[in-house]
Amino acid sequence: MEFHFLGTGSGVPAIERNVSAMAIRFLQQKGTQWLFDCGEATQHQLLHSPITLTKIDRIFITHLHGDHIFGLPGLMGSRSFQGALSPLVIYGPKGLAEFIEASLAVSKTHLRYPYEVIELEEGFMFETEHLSVEALALNHVTPSFAFKLTEKDKPGTLDIKKLEAYNIPKGPHYQSLKEGKTITLEDGRTINGHEFVGPKKNGRVVVIAGDTRPTKEMIKFSREADILIHEATFRSDKADHAVQFGHSTTLEAASLAKEAKVKTLLLTHISSRYTGEEEAFLNEAKTIFENTHLAHDLMVYTLSS
Amino acid sequence: MEFHFLGTGSGVPAIERNVSAMAIRFLQQKGTQWLFDCGEATQHQLLHSPITLTKIDRIFITHLHGDHIFGLPGLMGSRSFQGALSPLVIYGPKGLAEFIEASLAVSKTHLRYPYEVIELEEGFMFETEHLSVEALALNHVTPSFAFKLTEKDKPGTLDIKKLEAYNIPKGPHYQSLKEGKTITLEDGRTINGHEFVGPKKNGRVVVIAGDTRPTKEMIKFSREADILIHEATFRSDKADHAVQFGHSTTLEAASLAKEAKVKTLLLTHISSRYTGEEEAFLNEAKTIFENTHLAHDLMVYTLSS
Ligand SMILES: [Zn+2]
Ligand SMILES: [Zn+2]
Repeated sequence: MEFHFLGTGSGVPAIERNVSAMAIRFLQQKGTQWLFDCGEATQHQLLHSPITLTKIDRIFITHLHGDHIFGLPGLMGSRSFQGALSPLVIYGPKGLAEFIEASLAVSKTHLRYPYEVIELEEGFMFETEHLSVEALALNHVTPSFAFKLTEKDKPGTLDIKKLEAYNIPKGPHYQSLKEGKTITLEDGRTINGHEFVGPKKNGRVVVIAGDTRPTKEMIKFSREADILIHEATFRSDKADHAVQFGHSTTLEAASLAKEAKVKTLLLTHISSRYTGEEEAFLNEAKTIFENTHLAHDLMVYTLSS
Repeated sequence: MEFHFLGTGSGVPAIERNVSAMAIRFLQQKGTQWLFDCGEATQHQLLHSPITLTKIDRIFITHLHGDHIFGLPGLMGSRSFQGALSPLVIYGPKGLAEFIEASLAVSKTHLRYPYEVIELEEGFMFETEHLSVEALALNHVTPSFAFKLTEKDKPGTLDIKKLEAYNIPKGPHYQSLKEGKTITLEDGRTINGHEFVGPKKNGRVVVIAGDTRPTKEMIKFSREADILIHEATFRSDKADHAVQFGHSTTLEAASLAKEAKVKTLLLTHISSRYTGEEEAFLNEAKTIFENTHLAHDLMVYTLSS
């Protein structure tokens, strides 16, 4: 799973950090790509990224602030212009459909692919072949959501060498053994598949949060996640700003990661006031949660399988 | 008058050319700045330009296609975030107000300055202290307009050396002479101001066209303009595309400039298919109208006074 950070700033674009967007490329699923938030000029950032607009088939919008949605109409139009015919599904808070419809209608943007907007409610979830996706309501100045992606557990691999050592001949019963069934061979032996299958692989968990104050529910929601992508708009010296505008500080995000016992914390949505102070910014978070990374525009973080 | 080309491409953003936007800086009017069209990431282009967002007080939208308007909500929000309190007036085709209102409302963008949207009709015009502005309907696949800016004529300058040669003492009557009045000096001489004032300076004329097929009305509207900024989406080899999508070719734009007897033609809205062929593109136009320039992103063209 690759995380492509396209915009890691907050509020307004700056030369160093564009407004919010992040894409996930699922390496083992035919290159499926999902986009999280779509601030203005997200499609411009894609021109500098290996993410292919036509391959994005789901877009998740955490909340409706301009720095998270104003790139959507243009990106949707360009996806069509670039030849995409595959359906696009867009998830986001109530009001998103109206914004998209008004923007496309006024601009007479004709899309050659079908799209659907699914407006979120607390408890929203769905499943794909490989993943389940859940939404959690956050605490921002406008409705804002986190998304949890949970990979389905993968069955353990069949231990071919052990099978050979037991002189169990190759054949269609390998599939039954892999599924943990018990079979009877021609020579009369009874074989229990469980003894020849390695431990199942637990699916990985990734949580991507929108703008928010830290919340208890997020600690529970992020419990033991492999990756938590969380905003840290301010350093702790601006804790009052974080409260006033519904954001989190470095220390608050790191504390949440620690309490939730996540494996890796990726900080994003950084105020442009901290340009040039990235090291101090990151170190502040690390005083609480060591395995923290500070995202930057066009950074790619890979979660190996 | 400085012309700052912010986006000179067509349809979708490319690395070399962003979607449409151009700013004029009026050097002699306290740095007043007007913006023409506002494609996505226009505010990003401003980060690389001397144009100051907070000083833009009028925005002209030629037509409502996405590549001309999708940067507007974000730019309006950032203008407020950067501290602008001065009013903003936005001119454009019917439907513009709805797009702006929907975008600002859904995103809960609060502006600290007042703004007004004036929807254009054929024959629209207004005057400022220094300029008159007229709109002309064009011929595109959606309502599209050209804007003509005509500077007011400036009175000639008072010839101080000649006044001194005639031994006319300095004093408040200089102002009367400058205005062409006749005065009587203390020594009894009668002096006619017209004899001491140089010829009046004709106001310059600038025409900025939106996407369009060439039209007869545009020839008349652009007559003897100092600057004509016109689209040339295609070269003449794609003349059929130009007809189909309501655009102009190099040769069509150059012919219009020639027939209208403009002084300078600036071509913009160039299809990304011509990346790397700029010289041939420009030369094609020059075969018909020699004083043609090809705009590029962040190009500044100065019309000296
Ligand atoms: Zn934000
Ligand atoms: Zn256009």
